[in-house]
Amino acid sequence: MKENDTGMDLFFEPGSVAVIGASNTVGKIGYKLMDNIVSGSYEGKLYPINPRDPEVFGMKAYKNITEIEGPVDMAVIAIPATFVLDEVEKCAKKGVKFLVMITSGFSEAGNIELERKVIKAARDGGMRVLGPNIFGLYSSRVSLNATFGPKGVKKGSVAIITQSGALGIAMIGMTATEGIGLSSIISVGNKGDLDEADLLDHLAEDVNTKAIMAYIEGITRGERMLESLRRVTRKKPVIVIKSGRSRRGAMAAASHTGSLAGSDEVFDAVMRQCGVLRAENLEEGFNWLKFIADAPLPSGKDTVIVTNGGGIGVMATDACEKYGIELLDEPELMRNIFSSSMPSFGSCKNPIDITGQASEVNYKDALLAGLESDRVHAMMALYCQTADFDKASYSEMITLIHNEYMRKHKPIAYSLVGGEEVSECIKELRSRGIPAFQGVYEMVSCFGALYRFRENLLREEQERVSIDTGSIQIGKIVDAALADGRDFLLSHEARAVLEAAGIPTPKSRIAHTIEEAMEAAEMIGYPVVMKIVSRDILHKSDAGGVALDLEDQEEVMDAYQLIIRNARNYDPHARIDGIEVSEMVHKGLETIIGARRDRSFGPILMFGLGGIYVEVMKDVSFRALPISRGEAISLLKEVRSYPLLLGVRGEESKDIEALIDSMMRVGSILSSVKRITDIEINPLFVYERGKGVKVVDIRIMVARDREV
Amino acid sequence: MKENDTGMDLFFEPGSVAVIGASNTVGKIGYKLMDNIVSGSYEGKLYPINPRDPEVFGMKAYKNITEIEGPVDMAVIAIPATFVLDEVEKCAKKGVKFLVMITSGFSEAGNIELERKVIKAARDGGMRVLGPNIFGLYSSRVSLNATFGPKGVKKGSVAIITQSGALGIAMIGMTATEGIGLSSIISVGNKGDLDEADLLDHLAEDVNTKAIMAYIEGITRGERMLESLRRVTRKKPVIVIKSGRSRRGAMAAASHTGSLAGSDEVFDAVMRQCGVLRAENLEEGFNWLKFIADAPLPSGKDTVIVTNGGGIGVMATDACEKYGIELLDEPELMRNIFSSSMPSFGSCKNPIDITGQASEVNYKDALLAGLESDRVHAMMALYCQTADFDKASYSEMITLIHNEYMRKHKPIAYSLVGGEEVSECIKELRSRGIPAFQGVYEMVSCFGALYRFRENLLREEQERVSIDTGSIQIGKIVDAALADGRDFLLSHEARAVLEAAGIPTPKSRIAHTIEEAMEAAEMIGYPVVMKIVSRDILHKSDAGGVALDLEDQEEVMDAYQLIIRNARNYDPHARIDGIEVSEMVHKGLETIIGARRDRSFGPILMFGLGGIYVEVMKDVSFRALPISRGEAISLLKEVRSYPLLLGVRGEESKDIEALIDSMMRVGSILSSVKRITDIEINPLFVYERGKGVKVVDIRIMVARDREV
Repeated sequence: MKENDTGMDLFFEPGSVAVIGASNTVGKIGYKLMDNIVSGSYEGKLYPINPRDPEVFGMKAYKNITEIEGPVDMAVIAIPATFVLDEVEKCAKKGVKFLVMITSGFSEAGNIELERKVIKAARDGGMRVLGPNIFGLYSSRVSLNATFGPKGVKKGSVAIITQSGALGIAMIGMTATEGIGLSSIISVGNKGDLDEADLLDHLAEDVNTKAIMAYIEGITRGERMLESLRRVTRKKPVIVIKSGRSRRGAMAAASHTGSLAGSDEVFDAVMRQCGVLRAENLEEGFNWLKFIADAPLPSGKDTVIVTNGGGIGVMATDACEKYGIELLDEPELMRNIFSSSMPSFGSCKNPIDITGQASEVNYKDALLAGLESDRVHAMMALYCQTADFDKASYSEMITLIHNEYMRKHKPIAYSLVGGEEVSECIKELRSRGIPAFQGVYEMVSCFGALYRFRENLLREEQERVSIDTGSIQIGKIVDAALADGRDFLLSHEARAVLEAAGIPTPKSRIAHTIEEAMEAAEMIGYPVVMKIVSRDILHKSDAGGVALDLEDQEEVMDAYQLIIRNARNYDPHARIDGIEVSEMVHKGLETIIGARRDRSFGPILMFGLGGIYVEVMKDVSFRALPISRGEAISLLKEVRSYPLLLGVRGEESKDIEALIDSMMRVGSILSSVKRITDIEINPLFVYERGKGVKVVDIRIMVARDREV
Repeated sequence: MKENDTGMDLFFEPGSVAVIGASNTVGKIGYKLMDNIVSGSYEGKLYPINPRDPEVFGMKAYKNITEIEGPVDMAVIAIPATFVLDEVEKCAKKGVKFLVMITSGFSEAGNIELERKVIKAARDGGMRVLGPNIFGLYSSRVSLNATFGPKGVKKGSVAIITQSGALGIAMIGMTATEGIGLSSIISVGNKGDLDEADLLDHLAEDVNTKAIMAYIEGITRGERMLESLRRVTRKKPVIVIKSGRSRRGAMAAASHTGSLAGSDEVFDAVMRQCGVLRAENLEEGFNWLKFIADAPLPSGKDTVIVTNGGGIGVMATDACEKYGIELLDEPELMRNIFSSSMPSFGSCKNPIDITGQASEVNYKDALLAGLESDRVHAMMALYCQTADFDKASYSEMITLIHNEYMRKHKPIAYSLVGGEEVSECIKELRSRGIPAFQGVYEMVSCFGALYRFRENLLREEQERVSIDTGSIQIGKIVDAALADGRDFLLSHEARAVLEAAGIPTPKSRIAHTIEEAMEAAEMIGYPVVMKIVSRDILHKSDAGGVALDLEDQEEVMDAYQLIIRNARNYDPHARIDGIEVSEMVHKGLETIIGARRDRSFGPILMFGLGGIYVEVMKDVSFRALPISRGEAISLLKEVRSYPLLLGVRGEESKDIEALIDSMMRVGSILSSVKRITDIEINPLFVYERGKGVKVVDIRIMVARDREV
């Protein structure tokens, strides 16, 4: 069953909520929930359910949800795990639409079967489930604080989704400290039913939500999530914090949530592919969230730094390079804009340094000059504490300017370096919703996130193509291998797969006699390579089963006899299926194309420059399939050794078109033939522009009955 | 003249200070200086100098420093630049020892000659100079605040050296906010005389200083500075913040300070080599400074994380990998230590997760269990805000534990995630000098710095060898080239240099006739390579002046004639000096060894794996010369492609011994023959272990009359 917007609307805007396990006993979760819902002034109808007490929080309590007369849109469940199934069935009877399952003690504690049963009962009863193992849900639309977190959540335009309940509670606290208003915060816990994708799809359309942050520990239905993310990030900024980046961290995450963390490199690459802004940690995430939710989108990339201290100006410039911010660099233009507001000893180069001897008026004039100019698209205002810093007057000036810029649609942020007074000034500015920071790097990183979001909005949506890659024919080859009891394809089968998909493989034939071998060689053209074909001989070279660079009929005859003799000596019982005669492939630039099914994200394409680049330098990158042509190009550009494809040391550039075509075809095979689990072409030789590519070695793994 | 400790003692502990330009006018620097010195309760004698007012700050003012009766150890100069020279001369007459030259308007404003004169006059008069263009000097030993920064500097054990005055003033503010006590803060400005090295040498011995931070924008006398840093970092932690990391930032720094920033990669490498802890920005630097100054040194590397939230535990684990912290990983040991203080649902794996349901008592017990165990060398305590967080009780508990750990000599730090109450708790803990952080990454990065400092203390000081590399013979070759009007060596000269230094080069001879060529080939052994030798033909291959893989006499004869003919066709006027006949070198692993004189740091050695690794992957690293064998090894290990030297894909490992020997010999050449400015061996082939290395191509640049 697929949710539709109306369905999820009721999740964020329930007209009535029952609390199963509502309690008068301080310290119980059922008490805290009631307390939060009541004191949060929930706008709908609230029904406490408690089998013993006739009243809870001064309201009539029901023994049983079915006793309630009116409809119940949502039931919040806060009773021990063993009692949950019964209550779920009653909720179904009552016609409840959404269950918010606070209760823990399910799959995260090893009770996987119980969780499965409970979720099944809910879904069979026509309900969607949030949780179990969560701290609840806050939705500003109806002022519903159905959490056991803190009270007094501030309403606003930011939505948070969190997999960790404990961290979610702390995050509510952080939003309060940071003055961030929430449209909703949702704890997804074990994701028994509803997950990030369901919520993202809805939040994308939610007019109350301007920016979204998700804390993720592990991904379950990754393919759906990526589709959601692709859609949402074209409308709203989505910031993701994922712990378990490191090998050891991933182990800790697995033991903590029971979810598979997967490879962080793949996660990182597919998040970038989907336009997600990935923050390293909470502080960074919250900084970005607050800044992007409020800042206007810059109309261009030309950023200007204004500073009263050279040192911090230089540091901000360093930070701009780190975070990919472009500094406006036209000396004459800069002089025109800034010289009138500049003391004689200042510098009109970007960073604009008005020096510590400049007055507050100089500072203000410089900022306004930048904000007034159409050529300046974003401003960074740095302030280094001087002896005559006046907190009140500075924050007054900044507040005025900040309001001014709002009209101009220009992002601007402030970094102040200094002592206690400066700290207080920052705090005051932040309390007014002004993006003021202690750290220069902190501030610049926010602009980095804003500009990446802008790129997402501007990027053209290219069609993600699934080329017709002869999937019927490929399916037959795979079925034959499976019928033969193998989980891999023999090399001629693998080559047939690539041929069917239109990927250039060396010309090749299987010969069973000397005559056939010579005929094959004539047809292929000299020089040729010959290799033994035997399922019993895995290491062909060790068995003397390979002959290279055969230049004429005579050499082919000799080689045929020698290979057969060597094979018999190596293993007298080996079944010999023939000898493969192939085109001798010229050396090109070695690359690797891989494709496999990731446990989290489904089909994934990998590209790297071959040989030691991959093995030693780990110079590879990834994309989730299917991909557009533009995504294939960006995948190529992401590997550090990409310049080799453009040609170095005076070499001609390589046939990137042909390489991309092969990458997309490999991707299409994996997308269309589900029984193929792994394809690795290693190496794929890439030749000069116009001269194509050629597969050298292929490995294809297959599996029966894959769940799709 | 080299400073000695007694000399610098008086700088930090002057018995008497004169302020030239002392003023009663609020707003003047001479007022602010007097105000700071007086209100800072300077323990020595203070003499205001003012030509007009008879009294300044209620004290007798002198028209002229020479009028003062007693001795004057230090004069602080705060008058316009044009009047400074006169006053310097008077100070010399008076026998002043140190000048603190606040005045700006010297080299930083283009007045290089004036600065040179002033400094010379001071040095000729037996004085050392701090500045000019500085905010002054604070020294806790005599409570001297001779700065125009803020008042009320807190005394303590941290020393700060800053090149930027503006930032220095802000930094004083930051120390106050952070509760960091200072032993001294010194602004070095234009470094006309005293620089970081002079101060570091003294601070290394200063019993009041436990940790040192330096903010640097550009290096002038880099070699001396590196020697100082090597010494100091073996005793005390030295944190360096250098702005101008990026290309654009370096440009901004140059325009701001007039100093050359140089390559950040070189800076980064040599700082690491010297044991410096380099922080990216001020926040990081101050975090490290405060933590390292107070924390006991851990007795080993086994760190344990205790947390009440799984999510932040995973994040801390990620951060540990990022910052190189080793987590204790012995399940049975962990159970023994922690199980008794653990609720049943918690995890005894590291990170120790006592879960959000644990009580404060559980939390305390877990921390104490770790602190009591000899097997735990450092602790990280994470706290994720729960509903029943009690600020007062938590900070009480942490304070008790923190005092306990001090006795145990175990570093411990705290990261608290949550809302307003948590922020206040952090603030309170920090005000008590306890290392509590909002961010998990912030906290872990402090441990990273502490462990790197520990490594510096433990590292064995190896002798930095300068091998005798036949420098007399090399000097003659260089002189001959210089006499010939060249700034480069011809290839046979360059080879002769390497041969003299004992670096394996291919056998080679210059032939002037066919007969000589054949004779040379016989002597060298076939196959050989032949190349035209002509100062007028730079691109030998383009001129058809190269023949490879010549296998017998006949081929040598043919090649000789062909090369001569080609060269004449290419340029009929070219002077042909002969034909070089060389050993044909077998292909090995391509490496590059480079050595050059860096503008900041003097002789620098560079190593990289050759060809496209260097060109495309920028996979190189650097060390300042001379180096020890251990440093050479660490240089090799720093390049990402290092595993290629160990052998990949079943190859044998390479002759690392021979490679290191060549690296050290190249370094020694540069160290001992100052007229050589650049050596590049590219490629140097490295063969299998025991089979040595061989130079393929060399480029050596020379210069006359280098200042050393």
